[in-house]
Amino acid sequence: MNDTNVVNDVNAPTDPLATIRAINQTSAFNRWCGIEVASAGGGEAEIVMPWRGEVGQYAGFLHAGLIGALIDTACGFAAASVVGRVLASHYSVNCLRPAVGERFMARARVVKSGKTQVFTACDLFAESGGVEKLVATGETILSVVPA
Amino acid sequence: MNDTNVVNDVNAPTDPLATIRAINQTSAFNRWCGIEVASAGGGEAEIVMPWRGEVGQYAGFLHAGLIGALIDTACGFAAASVVGRVLASHYSVNCLRPAVGERFMARARVVKSGKTQVFTACDLFAESGGVEKLVATGETILSVVPA
Amino acid sequence: MNDTNVVNDVNAPTDPLATIRAINQTSAFNRWCGIEVASAGGGEAEIVMPWRGEVGQYAGFLHAGLIGALIDTACGFAAASVVGRVLASHYSVNCLRPAVGERFMARARVVKSGKTQVFTACDLFAESGGVEKLVATGETILSVVPA
Amino acid sequence: MNDTNVVNDVNAPTDPLATIRAINQTSAFNRWCGIEVASAGGGEAEIVMPWRGEVGQYAGFLHAGLIGALIDTACGFAAASVVGRVLASHYSVNCLRPAVGERFMARARVVKSGKTQVFTACDLFAESGGVEKLVATGETILSVVPA
Repeated sequence: MNDTNVVNDVNAPTDPLATIRAINQTSAFNRWCGIEVASAGGGEAEIVMPWRGEVGQYAGFLHAGLIGALIDTACGFAAASVVGRVLASHYSVNCLRPAVGERFMARARVVKSGKTQVFTACDLFAESGGVEKLVATGETILSVVPA
Repeated sequence: MNDTNVVNDVNAPTDPLATIRAINQTSAFNRWCGIEVASAGGGEAEIVMPWRGEVGQYAGFLHAGLIGALIDTACGFAAASVVGRVLASHYSVNCLRPAVGERFMARARVVKSGKTQVFTACDLFAESGGVEKLVATGETILSVVPA
Repeated sequence: MNDTNVVNDVNAPTDPLATIRAINQTSAFNRWCGIEVASAGGGEAEIVMPWRGEVGQYAGFLHAGLIGALIDTACGFAAASVVGRVLASHYSVNCLRPAVGERFMARARVVKSGKTQVFTACDLFAESGGVEKLVATGETILSVVPA
Repeated sequence: MNDTNVVNDVNAPTDPLATIRAINQTSAFNRWCGIEVASAGGGEAEIVMPWRGEVGQYAGFLHAGLIGALIDTACGFAAASVVGRVLASHYSVNCLRPAVGERFMARARVVKSGKTQVFTACDLFAESGGVEKLVATGETILSVVPA
């Protein structure tokens, strides 16, 4: 029921990246986080978020809630690039390592796209000094919203 | 690996609510969200977060990432009230209804506490005009950090 | 996409228990397992399976695959008692304790029933010498199949 | 707490495939299912199960419980090939398509292996007439059992 990831023109958006970047800007939380859409289309999407103090938990790592937010958001964009309007109904997050870095990249892909549901998966990387490290994985199940 | 929910004095904190409120204040993200700890102890915890525009997604509902953040945080506090220092390794979120309200209450409980792992579950309620509605459920698996 | 749990007469089955017991008998695997439907109706269902050697893993505990099978099956019956024909699209299992007992009871309930999706949850108990113990929890997301 | 997947000689088994095949034979349920270990080692494992009537649900598809059993088992073997003795504490299953075929192959891999926990992921394929189709995905979190 995550309405974050909505594409207004359902089915085969002509320019999915532009469409999804516009959607991204309509979410107050995405703007606050500084989430940018690096790529989107063909069932894949990548978003990027820079580190800053406010996204940290007690120890200065990325808060697990934001790990989930990045995974859920990237998965929604990957699905929206294929089927248009979607709502997330379930997501899960595996925290593999402390999420520490200068910026974070969530890379999502559609695993299976059906008439009513889309299954997606996502890897979250932390970048420090130009080196990427996988810090979390996750998956999201999205419902397709009828036109 | 969510270090948000750390209790410094491991094992049987004498005043779990005070301890967990102090922990809550050490997380920059929790402070930014305005998360308050309403209760904590005996394997249960409740946190509260007021609505404001920045926590919304495109349609003005609570962002799914914050739904997960509240669930993960409450679960961590419930576990910490029993076993002390914990790290979340996995969490999942079910988005049942649009999360719309003046404030949100996440109520978590320990399902099973073992030597190395704690299983927790959480309900998230939205309150509008004094009426509560269940908007999401979730669960978190936490690793116990040795003293 | 678990078609195990299908109710042929969609919407408000007049006798959900009889309907679901009939469905249970149409599943070869459920028959092999010896699964019986103890109760079903109003969004709740309980199934029972006796222990025997073939359901064990190496150490003589109930195999985790069967823990999941019982949870998925009970959740499907709980959902079917409310909305009729359903297909499971996702389920998850938490293994809390060694599943050892003379018989196993899975008790499921509908958490939220929507037009296209049903969220359910389940507790699995092992009974030994008349004493029940919670050994696993789980949840299942089911898609409603149009009539 | 799935003890199915136990390797007796902890740490760097000299012949992981032989070890894991031996373990597979100690599980009564795995024998009943006809599960064979095709490969195991270096954090990966593949198991194969032939179709037969008893593994079906009402419509003649592979029962969702067995989908989970294959995923959980393959994940356990992948983890055991790296860290030795493990216990599954959580697994989840996505049912993407009807699981119909002459035989089923579950291919699992370790995503992250830590001191106390191993994260794994698995794809389940159905083979019909020599053609493979992805029918389910899943993941399992396993606890490392101290030597």
